[in-house]
Amino acid sequence: MSPLTTIGFDADDTLWQNETFFRLTEERFAALLAPYGDPALIRAHLFETEKRNLQFYGFGIKGFTLSMIETALQLTEGDAPVRVVQDILSFGREMARHPVETLPEVRETLEALAGHYRLVLITKGDLFDQERKLAASGLGDFFHAVEIVSDKNEATYSGVFTRHGDGPGRAMMVGNSLRSDVLPALAAGAWGIHVPHELTWEYEHAEAPLEAPRFRRIEGLADLPALIEEIEG
Amino acid sequence: MSPLTTIGFDADDTLWQNETFFRLTEERFAALLAPYGDPALIRAHLFETEKRNLQFYGFGIKGFTLSMIETALQLTEGDAPVRVVQDILSFGREMARHPVETLPEVRETLEALAGHYRLVLITKGDLFDQERKLAASGLGDFFHAVEIVSDKNEATYSGVFTRHGDGPGRAMMVGNSLRSDVLPALAAGAWGIHVPHELTWEYEHAEAPLEAPRFRRIEGLADLPALIEEIEG
Repeated sequence: MSPLTTIGFDADDTLWQNETFFRLTEERFAALLAPYGDPALIRAHLFETEKRNLQFYGFGIKGFTLSMIETALQLTEGDAPVRVVQDILSFGREMARHPVETLPEVRETLEALAGHYRLVLITKGDLFDQERKLAASGLGDFFHAVEIVSDKNEATYSGVFTRHGDGPGRAMMVGNSLRSDVLPALAAGAWGIHVPHELTWEYEHAEAPLEAPRFRRIEGLADLPALIEEIEG
Repeated sequence: MSPLTTIGFDADDTLWQNETFFRLTEERFAALLAPYGDPALIRAHLFETEKRNLQFYGFGIKGFTLSMIETALQLTEGDAPVRVVQDILSFGREMARHPVETLPEVRETLEALAGHYRLVLITKGDLFDQERKLAASGLGDFFHAVEIVSDKNEATYSGVFTRHGDGPGRAMMVGNSLRSDVLPALAAGAWGIHVPHELTWEYEHAEAPLEAPRFRRIEGLADLPALIEEIEG
């Protein structure tokens, strides 16, 4: 088998915390709208709005903020006090400057692998926000290339691993989302390594491809070097 | 002199219309808020909000929409009818799907140059929106690479022209913004070619660097092949 040369890493909730900031904001949003409905229903309504708006906004904080405003207007049937919209705008700005918390063992793992493989960061979301987080994380120098993409599908991985490596057959994608990181990378012919995160956005859920020969699951990034050694035989 | 090998093109208002959609939306916004103030003052207030929010939102439609909402709340002193916010959300969604109007002679010029130079698209703004517009323009195949960046400064051009070409010394940047396309490209050591557009966002204005030896100005993209021939001697 051709040896592995290139490893792609997802960023949000693979290298650093992200979903936790969205969840906290969702909770603040549900509390803000508590006079107008049950928190669970408010969150469900917000999720529907977000999904519907993906076609206009893509992924990221700004689209999320716009979806919160839209949801608030709907739930209050046009009766939202202006303060509600002001608060939502503040939530969005606070998310846009939240501190970056690197996940455990991330730096050590990247350091161990960077000399032996071409590491590529492959992330979706706001370009502006992802660049900010990468700079704040101090992890930028480990990566041969950074690709911020609007969607992660089979063509994305074929393209990125061809552009920055020796094709998907000699590449591996590592991330917390089965839907965005693992399944399309497997479809492209790469290895797909799932590193579950305790919080994963509902939209990213999918069935684990347990039968796929190139699918693996590890508990944390610290287990990646040993897994690669095992695969490489 | 080392011959030119790489040409960077700005996208918005260089390859296709963009500012016109922002201006139309600004006019609709001013009309919507007409009961609360003079249109010129409303537009000035919006521009201040946009500038202040660049640090949170970067460039693009979603940040612009959020800035319109914020401006509306301020101008109405919290007294905005909810319909105003709803209308602003609709303005944003309409911008996110406006048709792409390629500027005159763009396709012909790219076609003429693509066989002889490495063409690179270098644009800022919403990743999601720029990808949509590039796909809709049908111009994607002319480009060796597409770089959607969060800001355009000297380091951006040094990086892009090194990654996709033979360094800035053998590269040229073509665009409608002196501030974003021409001045930082010149600072990086590339040629900076200004193609003025009748509408250019106030933020992008700057003094023309008339003394810079690698600065040129052309009336439209159709004049680019002749200019390059003259430069290449």
